[in-house]
Amino acid sequence: MTRRTMLTSSLGLGLAGLAGAVPAPPRGYTLPPTEAESEPKPAPPAEPWEPSRRIGFAVVGLGNLTCNQLLPAFAQSGKARLVALVSGHPEKARLLAQRHGVSEKAIYDYKTFDRIVDNPEIQAVYIVLPNSMHLEFTVRAARAGKHVLCEKPMANTVAEAEEMIRACKEARRKLMIAYRIQYEPGNRMVRQMLQGGKLGAVRCIEAVNVQNQGAPDQWRHKLKLAGGGALPDIGLYNLNTTRFLLGEEPSEVLGQVFSRPGDPRFTEVEETCQFQMNFPSGVRTSHVTNYSAYNSKRYRVYAEHGWIGMDPAFAYQGLAMEVARNVDGQDVRSRPPVPAKNQFIAEIDHMAACIAADKTPYTPGEEGLQDQKIMAAIYESARLGRAVKLDAPAGKDLFRGTDPDALSS
Amino acid sequence: MTRRTMLTSSLGLGLAGLAGAVPAPPRGYTLPPTEAESEPKPAPPAEPWEPSRRIGFAVVGLGNLTCNQLLPAFAQSGKARLVALVSGHPEKARLLAQRHGVSEKAIYDYKTFDRIVDNPEIQAVYIVLPNSMHLEFTVRAARAGKHVLCEKPMANTVAEAEEMIRACKEARRKLMIAYRIQYEPGNRMVRQMLQGGKLGAVRCIEAVNVQNQGAPDQWRHKLKLAGGGALPDIGLYNLNTTRFLLGEEPSEVLGQVFSRPGDPRFTEVEETCQFQMNFPSGVRTSHVTNYSAYNSKRYRVYAEHGWIGMDPAFAYQGLAMEVARNVDGQDVRSRPPVPAKNQFIAEIDHMAACIAADKTPYTPGEEGLQDQKIMAAIYESARLGRAVKLDAPAGKDLFRGTDPDALSS
Amino acid sequence: MTRRTMLTSSLGLGLAGLAGAVPAPPRGYTLPPTEAESEPKPAPPAEPWEPSRRIGFAVVGLGNLTCNQLLPAFAQSGKARLVALVSGHPEKARLLAQRHGVSEKAIYDYKTFDRIVDNPEIQAVYIVLPNSMHLEFTVRAARAGKHVLCEKPMANTVAEAEEMIRACKEARRKLMIAYRIQYEPGNRMVRQMLQGGKLGAVRCIEAVNVQNQGAPDQWRHKLKLAGGGALPDIGLYNLNTTRFLLGEEPSEVLGQVFSRPGDPRFTEVEETCQFQMNFPSGVRTSHVTNYSAYNSKRYRVYAEHGWIGMDPAFAYQGLAMEVARNVDGQDVRSRPPVPAKNQFIAEIDHMAACIAADKTPYTPGEEGLQDQKIMAAIYESARLGRAVKLDAPAGKDLFRGTDPDALSS
Amino acid sequence: MTRRTMLTSSLGLGLAGLAGAVPAPPRGYTLPPTEAESEPKPAPPAEPWEPSRRIGFAVVGLGNLTCNQLLPAFAQSGKARLVALVSGHPEKARLLAQRHGVSEKAIYDYKTFDRIVDNPEIQAVYIVLPNSMHLEFTVRAARAGKHVLCEKPMANTVAEAEEMIRACKEARRKLMIAYRIQYEPGNRMVRQMLQGGKLGAVRCIEAVNVQNQGAPDQWRHKLKLAGGGALPDIGLYNLNTTRFLLGEEPSEVLGQVFSRPGDPRFTEVEETCQFQMNFPSGVRTSHVTNYSAYNSKRYRVYAEHGWIGMDPAFAYQGLAMEVARNVDGQDVRSRPPVPAKNQFIAEIDHMAACIAADKTPYTPGEEGLQDQKIMAAIYESARLGRAVKLDAPAGKDLFRGTDPDALSS
Repeated sequence: MTRRTMLTSSLGLGLAGLAGAVPAPPRGYTLPPTEAESEPKPAPPAEPWEPSRRIGFAVVGLGNLTCNQLLPAFAQSGKARLVALVSGHPEKARLLAQRHGVSEKAIYDYKTFDRIVDNPEIQAVYIVLPNSMHLEFTVRAARAGKHVLCEKPMANTVAEAEEMIRACKEARRKLMIAYRIQYEPGNRMVRQMLQGGKLGAVRCIEAVNVQNQGAPDQWRHKLKLAGGGALPDIGLYNLNTTRFLLGEEPSEVLGQVFSRPGDPRFTEVEETCQFQMNFPSGVRTSHVTNYSAYNSKRYRVYAEHGWIGMDPAFAYQGLAMEVARNVDGQDVRSRPPVPAKNQFIAEIDHMAACIAADKTPYTPGEEGLQDQKIMAAIYESARLGRAVKLDAPAGKDLFRGTDPDALSS
Repeated sequence: MTRRTMLTSSLGLGLAGLAGAVPAPPRGYTLPPTEAESEPKPAPPAEPWEPSRRIGFAVVGLGNLTCNQLLPAFAQSGKARLVALVSGHPEKARLLAQRHGVSEKAIYDYKTFDRIVDNPEIQAVYIVLPNSMHLEFTVRAARAGKHVLCEKPMANTVAEAEEMIRACKEARRKLMIAYRIQYEPGNRMVRQMLQGGKLGAVRCIEAVNVQNQGAPDQWRHKLKLAGGGALPDIGLYNLNTTRFLLGEEPSEVLGQVFSRPGDPRFTEVEETCQFQMNFPSGVRTSHVTNYSAYNSKRYRVYAEHGWIGMDPAFAYQGLAMEVARNVDGQDVRSRPPVPAKNQFIAEIDHMAACIAADKTPYTPGEEGLQDQKIMAAIYESARLGRAVKLDAPAGKDLFRGTDPDALSS
Repeated sequence: MTRRTMLTSSLGLGLAGLAGAVPAPPRGYTLPPTEAESEPKPAPPAEPWEPSRRIGFAVVGLGNLTCNQLLPAFAQSGKARLVALVSGHPEKARLLAQRHGVSEKAIYDYKTFDRIVDNPEIQAVYIVLPNSMHLEFTVRAARAGKHVLCEKPMANTVAEAEEMIRACKEARRKLMIAYRIQYEPGNRMVRQMLQGGKLGAVRCIEAVNVQNQGAPDQWRHKLKLAGGGALPDIGLYNLNTTRFLLGEEPSEVLGQVFSRPGDPRFTEVEETCQFQMNFPSGVRTSHVTNYSAYNSKRYRVYAEHGWIGMDPAFAYQGLAMEVARNVDGQDVRSRPPVPAKNQFIAEIDHMAACIAADKTPYTPGEEGLQDQKIMAAIYESARLGRAVKLDAPAGKDLFRGTDPDALSS
Repeated sequence: MTRRTMLTSSLGLGLAGLAGAVPAPPRGYTLPPTEAESEPKPAPPAEPWEPSRRIGFAVVGLGNLTCNQLLPAFAQSGKARLVALVSGHPEKARLLAQRHGVSEKAIYDYKTFDRIVDNPEIQAVYIVLPNSMHLEFTVRAARAGKHVLCEKPMANTVAEAEEMIRACKEARRKLMIAYRIQYEPGNRMVRQMLQGGKLGAVRCIEAVNVQNQGAPDQWRHKLKLAGGGALPDIGLYNLNTTRFLLGEEPSEVLGQVFSRPGDPRFTEVEETCQFQMNFPSGVRTSHVTNYSAYNSKRYRVYAEHGWIGMDPAFAYQGLAMEVARNVDGQDVRSRPPVPAKNQFIAEIDHMAACIAADKTPYTPGEEGLQDQKIMAAIYESARLGRAVKLDAPAGKDLFRGTDPDALSS
């Protein structure tokens, strides 16, 4: 037992062992020690792979998420590199290719997309298109022999999701759904704390994901393109994160959807969805998602001997954790710092590591399919006006693949 | 416009006008100014009424709430005074009477209770008994010519609540339900902020009230005595505060109740109740209440241009407010301080002021009856497995009486 | 070892044992348990003494502090009662006497003050006058056979403070200085945590007390009445609290005073005082006090293995504590709740308990005298432009009397 | 006036105009709008320069800062690229070169360093060596025709700093000192808020920078290598940030240094330094820096109508801002979010932009020299035991170059 371990275990707080759970891989060189052992020390950054070893990605779709989050993430990734762009806007694609060091020859449009088969630099395709296009491009990418990283929600229907899985399986290519929260250190700490039983049995979870939508005519407001409104776009975070934290599957859902009449944004898709998921272990969860309220994304898990939550929870950055416990009869709240790890880099790096090591991603197509089934049940419940039962197979993390920490070197 | 007003209105933050809305009544004397005008200044304490003018109360029931909260509150009240105790434990009553300056002659038990009719010092009775006894003691108090302040929940059933209202009306006595949150400054600021439209239209509210119950054999776990479990005891705060904040009445509720099998605390009453209340204006609210999770009481109101909430929300002390808004494209969170006003004193003083001024209390029997109707609908919804409609009369604050600020002198 | 102790000791956080250090005295009656053992439980309120046993106080001076803080505090005290008022404003005194139940015969002015000797109800006098009047009224009160509770700063000079101590000693009356912070639970927890070594050796303390003064012509801005500016009025909190937290005495001080020219508030007294106090143990402390900046009162103690502080620190209410420690390599901040105990009641009750039990108050005249000596040294340092040595007697808490927790029943 | 501006200006909070002050440069392409105008919107990331346009840097010294912070920062920079490494550890250099895509030919050691003259890819040199080596390597780099970015503190003495400036001037090369705080968005917002007068005149600043040092034999504990202890290493942040926030220069300093006897870390350099800087405008500032206390880095600025501060303040990440103001008589605290911009990228990008546009860096050698002069005066004050006067030239930002916002495209 090192002095550091002794110190922290005597401090307690029930957080011991969280941060150090997965030792950083050896770096191959040493650094002079500078601070006292008792000082807080953030984990050192992962060493990048040599450029030639990094996995080449094509990004399909150059919208907000790609331009503001994914392109910067690729620039910072130590395991992946951007090698191709696919877009319907040739001038924008050319500009971005130049700036990001992508060869002009590696620009494709939606028609020429299948030619990626001839570009060996492209090992994986990251699909960042309207939900209704996920199926088509996953199938085309798999047929071109490329692995697929697909944005959430996976698809508009259960059938589409199943077809995506089948196509990748037949092509022996990997399929990963971009559930960034499952790769984010803060949420992983929450899960570890809960599953380690440090707060006793979980009783309830409540989660909120609301934001105020703009442009009424954007694709997210078209049922055919988006498959739904607030639920698949943002409520899915509540749903997927809850399943991730618990590691089990809901056996029953109850849903309500609602749109205020007259708002042009919500003529096709729901403005608000409230839903409850009940789990076989007895955990009850309550969710609110809405498309017309000021941005707020948070959740809290209520357990026997304390609660833990994040607020903000599902944002791209600035996530914050809070824990409350009884210490000597007092309700003490703590704020363990959440390492400011870029969630997009984390997910891209995981996909690259899975490709390099030939492992199943932690959030494979099956993880996305399960969410599609649950969302379908929520909508059905809302339509029927009563709870809907779900098949809840026993076992932990049934739809998840290789843990990211097992591939971190 | 004073310099102070100018300063604060130029600061904005959307909070302007909240604290100063009700000017403190004149004190009849002056104090030398000490701080600069721009310094924050808590409102001065209310001047007490002369002892002889204070309204005399009998407290019925000497349990935790009475001993730990109400007796200290009476000691500090400037408008009420404790003049009698009613208890089934004569020795305890004697001890507390001595310590709190209550005459030994003013100690009653449940049998001798009706003799309060002969004690002119007793003007009002504060009923702090198991829920099932509220009806009986309200009726007996009213018949003895005393005003009634009754703990929440008002009763076990709608019928009981109606009988209580009738009894007081017939005796021409006031009936107030002890909804302390409606008298607490922080919650009143939230309401004022929402109703002033400073955050735009309200879209959703979610509220949580969970705590971990002890002793399985306490009366709160007996259906006959308590009328229910988590819902009437603590979920009622979610329900009543939501109605208070919005000022309107729900037109539909959807409820689920659940008890894990095998827990001796929850063989008669529900462990968990999740419920949604939908309002005619389009506001959707989601609620969690549970009797087996670590203490957490909070709510948040999601509006078009910001959110506001309290966490902790329903505790006896330590309430904290948080507001978030967009300031120059940034999500800025502020924490307006909540004056540390004792909630029990606030409610007792309001009852005393209503008696003195012959006004209807802000939370009369009708306010409690409305909650009983809604709770009955939630239980019905849970039993039927579908939403239940409610009569939602149009109008603001339909069941509330005289605003406490109108009686603050 | 009870289940509760086990739970909390396994939680650690280094706070164990703080809250429960002094068991509440037996109440003589029992209350039904309601919550699970693992729920946070605030300490129950102290039981009041029977009215006849409470110590009678006269309050001298009816300014802001008396009207806004002390009169409400007496109303709530369970060990003291207000029995007389002394004021130069007869009408104000009459009004307040009526409202607070003080007999009209027990109103005195500064001339008739000595007649208190004939009023056996008055056992103690609380002096709330401009600093320069503390000596005179302490001497007159002691001569009238009354115990003295005197506001801080004790006096304008070391010599005055010594004379106050002498006068009370000769009259065999108790003398206590109203250092409310030493009776406030949050600050007491900080001290306990530091002295228990839970954060390792203390290295540095920094404390700030600034506020923006109003009315230039108030007595606090007159050198003769106040004895100084920001230092004795508000910087004294930094000084006294630092000594309280460490339990030791400084051996060296270094001070600077400064007033911006032209501000009418600071023609006689200093606007800003910065001072450092160095302690024999090696602790170095830095202080800022200022009379022209927006209200902010805070301190932080920097120790080997963590820091602890309060912000706000010296305010009448709303005090908040924060602790930071290394937990598993992460810097975790916690906010132990500070019981919202009225500081004025705490100090008044302590004085009453000392009188009843014939004990030396925790902050007797000697504690005030030591501060006077240090303030004199700070001013001398500022005048000389170099550090000034102080006699720093070895030993812990040399100038403090009976610990309040030892008298809590 | 757009709807967005109207909204935020009516919200007030005194923060208006901060974030949007410098409009992001045009991107050359458009993105579909998604959120409502009233939603908070983080600034979009800057577009990277085409790889061929990015400025080539050699990094000298492969210690903690380089490996953990700078190499990742170069990987993410859109304006600079890492093209060479200089190290005394050939194996480590080879490993890092491989991983970071640096040609093996571009690895130098301290002897072969001057050969960089022959490598046209190297346009600038980033010196990350022990303080005593800054002079030598700056001179050698300038002579090789390279621009210099040098870590803080600039040098061990005023004379060395002057020689560095001279060498770069003679070689017509740019010299920038790596004061990352001056490029960090949060601190820039604080400065903007203060200089815009939104909180009234500044009265006092206090700043703390403490950490617990490890390995006694590291170079930071050798006087000859480090030039001092806590002051030049970490206290310099207090000093430099204070000057940056105020934009003016101190006219007087007062310092104390102290080392507990017997601690092997502090036999040559000071453990603690407390210092005050007084400014011509009347602002008084107090500083604590210490090498043996648990990590804490914070500051707060006290102004007439509010205070603003950062806590943590000087850390590499996780900076947090807090503002307090009077709103309607209440002390309201707000936490404007600080964009999580990597400080090292910000400073590297600024250096690159200055080179590309031929501008003087915002923190040129003259800015570092001024700090050296002030540190020398603090040490002199400590030695003499009295305040030391400084030449305080009138004018704003006298030693600063081109504002980073003016070069942001």
